[in-house]
Amino acid sequence: MAWNTNLRWRLPVTCLVLQVAMLVLFGVFVRYDEDADAHWWEPRGPGNGSREGARDLDNEFYYRYPSFQDVHVMVFLGFGFLMTFLQRYGFSALGFNFLLAALGIQWALLMQGWFHSFKDGHILVGVENLINADFCVASVCVAFGAVLGKVSPIQLLLMTFVQVTLFSVNEFILLNLLLVKDAGGSMTIHTFGAYFGLTVTWILYRHNLEQSKQRQTSVYHSDLFAMIGTLFLWMYWPSFNSAVSYHGDAQHRAAINTYCSLAASVLTSVAVSSAVHRRGKLDMVHIQNATLAGGVGVGTAAEMMLMPYGALVVGFLCGTFSTLGFAFLTPFLESRLRIQDTCGIHNLHGIPGIIGGIVGAVTAACATPDVYGKAGLAHSFDFEGLKQNWTAKTQGRYQIFGLLVTLAMALVGGTIMGLILRLPFWGQAADENCFEDSVYWEMEEEKSSGYPEDPTLKPPAPSGPLGPLASPGPSASLVP
Amino acid sequence: MAWNTNLRWRLPVTCLVLQVAMLVLFGVFVRYDEDADAHWWEPRGPGNGSREGARDLDNEFYYRYPSFQDVHVMVFLGFGFLMTFLQRYGFSALGFNFLLAALGIQWALLMQGWFHSFKDGHILVGVENLINADFCVASVCVAFGAVLGKVSPIQLLLMTFVQVTLFSVNEFILLNLLLVKDAGGSMTIHTFGAYFGLTVTWILYRHNLEQSKQRQTSVYHSDLFAMIGTLFLWMYWPSFNSAVSYHGDAQHRAAINTYCSLAASVLTSVAVSSAVHRRGKLDMVHIQNATLAGGVGVGTAAEMMLMPYGALVVGFLCGTFSTLGFAFLTPFLESRLRIQDTCGIHNLHGIPGIIGGIVGAVTAACATPDVYGKAGLAHSFDFEGLKQNWTAKTQGRYQIFGLLVTLAMALVGGTIMGLILRLPFWGQAADENCFEDSVYWEMEEEKSSGYPEDPTLKPPAPSGPLGPLASPGPSASLVP
Amino acid sequence: MAWNTNLRWRLPVTCLVLQVAMLVLFGVFVRYDEDADAHWWEPRGPGNGSREGARDLDNEFYYRYPSFQDVHVMVFLGFGFLMTFLQRYGFSALGFNFLLAALGIQWALLMQGWFHSFKDGHILVGVENLINADFCVASVCVAFGAVLGKVSPIQLLLMTFVQVTLFSVNEFILLNLLLVKDAGGSMTIHTFGAYFGLTVTWILYRHNLEQSKQRQTSVYHSDLFAMIGTLFLWMYWPSFNSAVSYHGDAQHRAAINTYCSLAASVLTSVAVSSAVHRRGKLDMVHIQNATLAGGVGVGTAAEMMLMPYGALVVGFLCGTFSTLGFAFLTPFLESRLRIQDTCGIHNLHGIPGIIGGIVGAVTAACATPDVYGKAGLAHSFDFEGLKQNWTAKTQGRYQIFGLLVTLAMALVGGTIMGLILRLPFWGQAADENCFEDSVYWEMEEEKSSGYPEDPTLKPPAPSGPLGPLASPGPSASLVP
Repeated sequence: MAWNTNLRWRLPVTCLVLQVAMLVLFGVFVRYDEDADAHWWEPRGPGNGSREGARDLDNEFYYRYPSFQDVHVMVFLGFGFLMTFLQRYGFSALGFNFLLAALGIQWALLMQGWFHSFKDGHILVGVENLINADFCVASVCVAFGAVLGKVSPIQLLLMTFVQVTLFSVNEFILLNLLLVKDAGGSMTIHTFGAYFGLTVTWILYRHNLEQSKQRQTSVYHSDLFAMIGTLFLWMYWPSFNSAVSYHGDAQHRAAINTYCSLAASVLTSVAVSSAVHRRGKLDMVHIQNATLAGGVGVGTAAEMMLMPYGALVVGFLCGTFSTLGFAFLTPFLESRLRIQDTCGIHNLHGIPGIIGGIVGAVTAACATPDVYGKAGLAHSFDFEGLKQNWTAKTQGRYQIFGLLVTLAMALVGGTIMGLILRLPFWGQAADENCFEDSVYWEMEEEKSSGYPEDPTLKPPAPSGPLGPLASPGPSASLVP
Repeated sequence: MAWNTNLRWRLPVTCLVLQVAMLVLFGVFVRYDEDADAHWWEPRGPGNGSREGARDLDNEFYYRYPSFQDVHVMVFLGFGFLMTFLQRYGFSALGFNFLLAALGIQWALLMQGWFHSFKDGHILVGVENLINADFCVASVCVAFGAVLGKVSPIQLLLMTFVQVTLFSVNEFILLNLLLVKDAGGSMTIHTFGAYFGLTVTWILYRHNLEQSKQRQTSVYHSDLFAMIGTLFLWMYWPSFNSAVSYHGDAQHRAAINTYCSLAASVLTSVAVSSAVHRRGKLDMVHIQNATLAGGVGVGTAAEMMLMPYGALVVGFLCGTFSTLGFAFLTPFLESRLRIQDTCGIHNLHGIPGIIGGIVGAVTAACATPDVYGKAGLAHSFDFEGLKQNWTAKTQGRYQIFGLLVTLAMALVGGTIMGLILRLPFWGQAADENCFEDSVYWEMEEEKSSGYPEDPTLKPPAPSGPLGPLASPGPSASLVP
Repeated sequence: MAWNTNLRWRLPVTCLVLQVAMLVLFGVFVRYDEDADAHWWEPRGPGNGSREGARDLDNEFYYRYPSFQDVHVMVFLGFGFLMTFLQRYGFSALGFNFLLAALGIQWALLMQGWFHSFKDGHILVGVENLINADFCVASVCVAFGAVLGKVSPIQLLLMTFVQVTLFSVNEFILLNLLLVKDAGGSMTIHTFGAYFGLTVTWILYRHNLEQSKQRQTSVYHSDLFAMIGTLFLWMYWPSFNSAVSYHGDAQHRAAINTYCSLAASVLTSVAVSSAVHRRGKLDMVHIQNATLAGGVGVGTAAEMMLMPYGALVVGFLCGTFSTLGFAFLTPFLESRLRIQDTCGIHNLHGIPGIIGGIVGAVTAACATPDVYGKAGLAHSFDFEGLKQNWTAKTQGRYQIFGLLVTLAMALVGGTIMGLILRLPFWGQAADENCFEDSVYWEMEEEKSSGYPEDPTLKPPAPSGPLGPLASPGPSASLVP
């Protein structure tokens, strides 16, 4: 099928319409919250407004900002570079991730704001809103991993818009209706993002994708670029899982647990990676991805009294299952279930996300006043007000409900999304042109060479949707 | 013209003389400020010096250090990698940026210290001084972008020395005499750096630069390296604009505004980039640069009550104008005004810097006690002491004066600097050898190959100032 | 000699056994410390457990976590990427560093915990333990630099296990028995790591390593990747040296001193690098490494009243000696003393580490109540309890003892380690296959090409331990 990949008017108009819409909605709704408003300074002193140092640090900014920056790096650089492993898709991996995340954080500030920070007709934003917006976008980045190389930037903008919307609804159901705990987002971010993305890619199944297979691999340098992403995700994951936990011990504990879990998943990923290769060699794909599974797996339970050894167990299992998934499940899903999962997000976010949801439920169900202290238990799980009569068991049960709701939302939402994205006018590339930057990017080689239509570097270039792979001459995809 | 690019004695002597001078001046002048001095611990306890935990966190270190580290990353890694986009100039981009910044921060600690932290014959430094020194150097990094590939490290050291000096004078005039607010440095850092650098490159105009044109482009991997710089600049810009704001709400607000503005400029950069290409393709240069314009544009106003939608408007405009600048203005400046702006700093720092100055003036002029609170307004703009009788309007007017002074300083200073750098003995390369690492760097290929004079990789190598591009044999530039 | 490099069972079993051991030991010993335990919340309020905001920030987490994250980046990304400079060893540099560090931090939490955080049968961990574990692993990363390219991952796991053990013993002797100050680890981390690693590589001397010489160099892009490591190490070193100092002025001062010292070592590295090249060109190896020497050199004294000019002097000397070491000492060590030091760690960590130990001793010995204040002096050097009768001179003397003990421990420990690692069954590669990823990594080229045995990219590939370099056909190292 021949699609027109010239986005000259479609992409600018989509971006501008969305950005103007954001602008108008921000104008109507978004204001600073108390800690970011100039009035914050007002009632400080004992009456006369004089500077009283001791209160300065009590601004939420100082509790959350360092974690926010780490999460920000994960979303924009971590996910972006992780996806540069493809040999000819680095521009798109970074550029499209940048684009969708920049839209996503704005829309998430609004959506999450309406649900959680709405007061007297305004959304009041502070640093915690910024973190939550980044979290929401992380879920979109996860889903992007499944469709990487196969969708146009317009499709990604649409997907971001819809997914952020559904994410916020799902998050609201979990946190505010089911009163679930999920600070690191095993369920809301990873499970939701993974199954949403997998459903989308399942519906967008491309029959002739093997025509792009030679570009769906890495080269030496692209694997090193991807490791930048891996390492930043890995290193900052303790910040991710602790960023929105309660002040003090909860944030502290979440960081420790995540640190332990991630360490364990590195060792088991390496072990399994070597064991499944007939000559015991390591596979870079496993190191780039499965080492991170431990962070996903403790997302829900990190702030709970999981204990460091509990975290090690989770990391151990997640690293193992994730690597096994890359080795055996991904090929199976692709050949049997027609799920073309470019980055293997099912192994990195899907399975570990579900494990994380279950671990969270079990950890919550097993909470006792012995372990938490009486006040600590009530504080950790908000057993007050609405939840006054809840026991740890109730909490555990609702955690499982939360996981199931998330899966349902992801599958239904992903189906609808996939059907919309199948429409033929979003500028998507033909099967034989997937995983190729030159479809959407002006390449230096084109600019400088005398053959403006001659695409790209060494790896056989896309010849456009109408021609066979080896066809010479200007490719149809490049004709406006 | 044939210049001698052998720096064997000139570069070491320059470095050592400068470093020894720094050492002596530090010895005479620089001491720790109260919060970094061991006496800080002294008067803590209620008389007996016993440990009193609650006061520990009240050290300025904990307010500023996380932001400082982010700014540090922006200056050394952000600007450095952003400039690695050239195919054969990555060593120089990173190495020279490293060198000039390392000198610049020392000289800035002294210059800014004499102006702002001088007490009883000593400059007292703390973490805020480190941030301000990094800020000052950021301005030099901006100017470096204009002359990238065309100057020697000796010229850069000279330029750093002079520019830091003028920056500090300009900053003193703005902050201490005109009593202007400019926490994120739209004026003092970006406008000053950009127009200083543009003036220098205008005076250093190279007639035959097209002989190096084939190296003034990127290759696939160099563009990915540059994205490391772009993303770190983009992600940490909220820290940049909030790093030296007042504690509490001002820092908090500056981060939120910058976050919003940057998000908007990503979408408009992408929109315009696609719209100006005849087939709607994106240009990596725009993504690498124009996406950052939103951060420059809210530099002055970020800490004010700009409102999130105000930030979006600024980011929207800056992203748009910046991309248009890359597409249309830079070629015009080069062909008509003979301004060879390697990195397009006019589009990323010049225009958005001026926009930022104006936005700051307007935002200040519109400040009301309604929006800020009475005490908040006085606190935010220091309407006390010297400025007791100032109104918001006065502040706005002085902001504009500040912008004009900055432009004047940059143009005059840049002219003088340019004339000094035109002298022929600074080791600069010939026109046909620009944008080439092997002029100043020992390349691995030379070391290991049997042909020590044979320079560099695939792209046609420089043949030295005397010979034509294709001349074989040892190049004149390499003869000691 | 022909070694079997197939790790199919050895590596997985080693990883899993170690990880299960960690898991069991964590289960028995490791718990959260007070600030990370849910009980932390308990006694907060004035009796009734109600939320009292002001105390939240008094959690150790907020003093240390930003520094922890910076240190974490240095260990996993900084050291990892610094070692990617070799043209065909980037996967191993990153992957093995990742693996050994992930094991190391777990074992370090236990070892250091038994020595320093053991209470009522449990090791109580908090964020400071995480930093110290990272510190300990940094020492292993240093030693890894000496043997880079010449050891198998199994050897690295063993080395990590032993070195962490000895590190912890040495650290205990220094900090708890000799009562030495060494917050930035000039002695415990750098000197120990360097001489341990050098001794190991001396014992593992490879006679025919010149057969791998062509791969022991860099290529253009690999040098840029290495600069990512260099810059993150350089930028975050102030956090490294201040991470575990006392709250307040000590952390603050350590950051300032390190900032100054590092700046000076950049200028002198550049100066010497240019001076030692016959045409005055810069060598990327010096920029990548010697610029960091200033951070090592102020490790011990950074938290003391070294004064900014003192820091500049240290940085000046370390940058100079380090660069001279790379230019003259490393070739000498290799040819005369048969010490094959891949990364030149003797120049970056050995010499500057010893300088740092001496500078620390001198700075301590010169401490006076004038400079520190009476209480400040006692607080800075813990002159209370055990050390009640100590003077600054005593402290200086013990610092020197500490340095000597460290050297002795490193040499003896390294010898034993080297002898163990010489055993032939650890999966190490033959001399002609060193510095080559394809020995332990599945390369994309092998996967996709029709010639599964045909290894790797352009630089002449290893032919396996049995054959000469140019031998065709399947290499022996690849036969299971």
